[in-house]
Amino acid sequence: MAANPSRAGLGAIRRFFPILDWGRRYDKGAFSADLMAAAIVTIMLIPQSLAYALLAGLPAEMGLYASILPLVAYAVFGTSRALAVGPVAVVSLLTAAAVGNLALPGTAEYIAAAIVLAFLSGLMLVAMGVFRLGFLANFLSHPVIAGFITASGLIIAVSQLKHILGISAEGHSLVEIVLSLWHNLGETNYLTLAIGAGATAFLFWVRKGLKPLLIRLGIGKGPADVLAKAGPVAAVVATTLIAWGFGLADKGVKIVGDVPSGLPPLTVPSFDLSLWTSLAGSAFIISIIGFVESISVAQTLAAKKRQRIEPDQELVGLGTSNIASALSGGFPVTGGFSRSVVNFDAGAETPAAGAFTALGITLAALFLTPLLFFLPKATLAATIIVAVLSLVDFSILKRTWAYSRADFAAVAATILLTLGFGVELGVSAGVVLSVVLFLYKTSRPHIAEVGLVPGTEHFRNVKRHEVLTHPEMMTLRLDENLYFANARYIEDYVLARLEKGCPVKHVVLMCSAVNVIDLSALESLEEINRRLDDMGIKLHLSEVKGPVMDRLKRSHFLEELSGEVFLCQYGAMRALAPVEEGRAPVAAE
Amino acid sequence: MAANPSRAGLGAIRRFFPILDWGRRYDKGAFSADLMAAAIVTIMLIPQSLAYALLAGLPAEMGLYASILPLVAYAVFGTSRALAVGPVAVVSLLTAAAVGNLALPGTAEYIAAAIVLAFLSGLMLVAMGVFRLGFLANFLSHPVIAGFITASGLIIAVSQLKHILGISAEGHSLVEIVLSLWHNLGETNYLTLAIGAGATAFLFWVRKGLKPLLIRLGIGKGPADVLAKAGPVAAVVATTLIAWGFGLADKGVKIVGDVPSGLPPLTVPSFDLSLWTSLAGSAFIISIIGFVESISVAQTLAAKKRQRIEPDQELVGLGTSNIASALSGGFPVTGGFSRSVVNFDAGAETPAAGAFTALGITLAALFLTPLLFFLPKATLAATIIVAVLSLVDFSILKRTWAYSRADFAAVAATILLTLGFGVELGVSAGVVLSVVLFLYKTSRPHIAEVGLVPGTEHFRNVKRHEVLTHPEMMTLRLDENLYFANARYIEDYVLARLEKGCPVKHVVLMCSAVNVIDLSALESLEEINRRLDDMGIKLHLSEVKGPVMDRLKRSHFLEELSGEVFLCQYGAMRALAPVEEGRAPVAAE
Repeated sequence: MAANPSRAGLGAIRRFFPILDWGRRYDKGAFSADLMAAAIVTIMLIPQSLAYALLAGLPAEMGLYASILPLVAYAVFGTSRALAVGPVAVVSLLTAAAVGNLALPGTAEYIAAAIVLAFLSGLMLVAMGVFRLGFLANFLSHPVIAGFITASGLIIAVSQLKHILGISAEGHSLVEIVLSLWHNLGETNYLTLAIGAGATAFLFWVRKGLKPLLIRLGIGKGPADVLAKAGPVAAVVATTLIAWGFGLADKGVKIVGDVPSGLPPLTVPSFDLSLWTSLAGSAFIISIIGFVESISVAQTLAAKKRQRIEPDQELVGLGTSNIASALSGGFPVTGGFSRSVVNFDAGAETPAAGAFTALGITLAALFLTPLLFFLPKATLAATIIVAVLSLVDFSILKRTWAYSRADFAAVAATILLTLGFGVELGVSAGVVLSVVLFLYKTSRPHIAEVGLVPGTEHFRNVKRHEVLTHPEMMTLRLDENLYFANARYIEDYVLARLEKGCPVKHVVLMCSAVNVIDLSALESLEEINRRLDDMGIKLHLSEVKGPVMDRLKRSHFLEELSGEVFLCQYGAMRALAPVEEGRAPVAAE
Repeated sequence: MAANPSRAGLGAIRRFFPILDWGRRYDKGAFSADLMAAAIVTIMLIPQSLAYALLAGLPAEMGLYASILPLVAYAVFGTSRALAVGPVAVVSLLTAAAVGNLALPGTAEYIAAAIVLAFLSGLMLVAMGVFRLGFLANFLSHPVIAGFITASGLIIAVSQLKHILGISAEGHSLVEIVLSLWHNLGETNYLTLAIGAGATAFLFWVRKGLKPLLIRLGIGKGPADVLAKAGPVAAVVATTLIAWGFGLADKGVKIVGDVPSGLPPLTVPSFDLSLWTSLAGSAFIISIIGFVESISVAQTLAAKKRQRIEPDQELVGLGTSNIASALSGGFPVTGGFSRSVVNFDAGAETPAAGAFTALGITLAALFLTPLLFFLPKATLAATIIVAVLSLVDFSILKRTWAYSRADFAAVAATILLTLGFGVELGVSAGVVLSVVLFLYKTSRPHIAEVGLVPGTEHFRNVKRHEVLTHPEMMTLRLDENLYFANARYIEDYVLARLEKGCPVKHVVLMCSAVNVIDLSALESLEEINRRLDDMGIKLHLSEVKGPVMDRLKRSHFLEELSGEVFLCQYGAMRALAPVEEGRAPVAAE
């Protein structure tokens, strides 16, 4: 509690405006570092922003619009020093899937829906931040995310083949897209293919071969890196010149065409309730996926410099970015992996680097757009393909198979359903399956009968260790939280163990691994207590944790319990089945 | 493993046909006990079966049809000795809600849909039994069930007021029904009201006052009980005679009318795919709710006689009952609470009692139906109201509030949503909320720093106990399974604890309460290990359970781990922060 209310208010303001924190310490060194990083990111972002707009089925200029105000908003509200916000591949694919259900690409309705999607997603993110609901993102397990990103990358790459081939193809799942491509393959435009395939090959070479070559040629590691990042810009310039010089547009090569130049338009999102309702689910998925992608890279980068990311404030930062995108004619954005890494490597020290990038894109939007007229769409497709193929990594299947079948099932289902039925169904099914499998696993918990390790005060599983037990006392260690999903199982298990006619007079439930007992489980414990009492057996608990005990004290269970609650299991054994001289507990068979 | 394959086959047959087990030992004593119980249950079931058909919006005779073959099927396949299968209130309400979305009550489509619903639900139950998916029912927590039953009972009671008042009213939620009743209140038929209110009052008196009175009059407890159970039959006979004698049907009192007499018709359910698709979700809900209601009462009764219920075989028993219901023109059935208790108290010894009840209902269907012509619907409504009000019990709200806010939230949401938006949404929301709240609870686990209790080998929370710690060693006990929902939280927590600049050289994660480490959590542990290594701090684990350790050995984590894995925490302390003479560990502040 702050003693001074105005100071507390200031603290809250600081929390919501991290810029007040780093802004005060901003100096010339940070300024020049940020400026340098911004220049490099801008060079990367120009072709990417156009390409991801294309991927989302939107006009190219919307990519630029989504790369200006959102970056400024994040610079004000975000907590990561290196995150580069803007259009990214997976979120653009999700946008296309969501909006494609409602309208045809290229129509005014389609554009309006994409803007509403960004607005809604922004509102949801801010709300999650304010109400501290960021934990919802935890329901996406690492394997599900890895599987989803891999499958999405594959779908994106395949979906871009239509631009490389110069044909049309529709669909949101891999199967649909491949069938559609196959069907239209006869209409391939070979000039487009030459440009597309050439650009793709060039960009792959830039990524793998250029940097080592430049270093071998005696250029420093830093400049070589920058030159390699400029590969897409070189491809854009070269293919634009070729398309212009040879008049390829008249020969069937699809070009970007007229991109209006100027500042982003102030936009009021549509407030059509039915549109909001039909986009709400998709906006939620985009919010969660975008947040997870963004926070992962932000935390990885922050860890390298021992900085901290505030997840709830990150939600606010990304939320305001999306609202800013919607208000300036853009589409959903988030923190992207590759550009953030570049930003970090280039030395960005504060979120101001993002604001400087926004300035760079503004200049591009004002002055460069006429030059983009002859840019072949195939070139943009090539930049997307090369970028997303680095996301495709099936090794998660091998890792999960080796470690855990449940994780493997979740990741395999996510990949197959994403490829077969589209991104939204795929990721939703992955989440549901993770949860159901976890609940299933905990619904049939491991229960071990334990005995005393001779010469110690420790109790271990009678099946794994040489331990001492006493015939009148059975100790069961419950290796799981007791809650609704396993309450009945535990009840059945304990009672079944005692039906086999044993001389047991005391049953001790060892609760060292029990962190939760909910009301369903409490009722099962009450039932076990009653039934054992009927049989003349006393029920005891041992090693109940503090928080669990606090809760049990709020019920009548402890009064009804036929036996006692022991602080430690050794104490329980000494009290219930004492080891007298010459009458040691018997070793378990 | 059975050595003899034909014997194993016989075992499987016995498992699927429990009748082979108890049938062999059937004797005259059991026969007469079952016959007696069947007679009493038949007397209860005749008015109830008609009433529940009415509640489901179906013709009265379907109640009788649903009370013949289903009972025979359960006698063959069921494992409970006392369960009375047939139409029950909550499942009839769910049927009305499901079928009411597709067709108007009284139409042929409505009847066909109810039959398909029983068939589908039967198939699902049998499939769940064969594939041992009964654990799905565990996702319904006790509080959610209690809340759902209470809210359903209230909706049923209120929905029957239209028959008591002789007006019409529609709707699936309490709000809709109350508004509809209010709107039509002016059309109340006072003769109907007199019969309905009279029957209701009479039945309440029978339930509360008749039995004590009879006992006071010197009649034995057993016969008094039977007479009290016959109350609804008396009400049916009396009001039918009144309606017939005074010609009340001509004065606006709604009567049951023509009930075709005869055996149940052999019925082939519709195989319309779109009908199956639209009913699938409802059939699933009905299957789960029916199973939970049935198995709860079956287990309670079995426990009293130390018998066992086989949940997977119960699924088969209830599934075949529902299929039998569909094939003989009935609607969804399950094991009912009140009739099963009566059956048990009346001395039923085997499932044969159910088959004898079926015989009784067959006789009623053949010979009694003409006598039901003048039976006022208000009388049936009165029997329903009196039966379901005993289900309404809001005390679960008080219990959960005292014990656990999460359970309270789940039960409150279930009640409110069931009352406000209908049964299907209510129970689904209750299940989802239970799961989400459980995941939320486990997503922010309790993590305790522990120290040594002086003079023992035990470690306890430094905040709750006087314990010894060593400045160079920090032991954190993780009080939860490590899995995707809390992997990031634990990573953040551990790293945040160490950022505060402490002289710690060893971090021990004490895993005595960790029963699961999934791949997401493993990646977080790897990250913690790397980050601590960067800081020059060694990471150790202690008290890792056998099954968890087996899994860790399948990954590379143990090779990468900078520290060691200790079997017990005391060993870890001795190895890492030894208590030398004159240099004892310091007591924690």
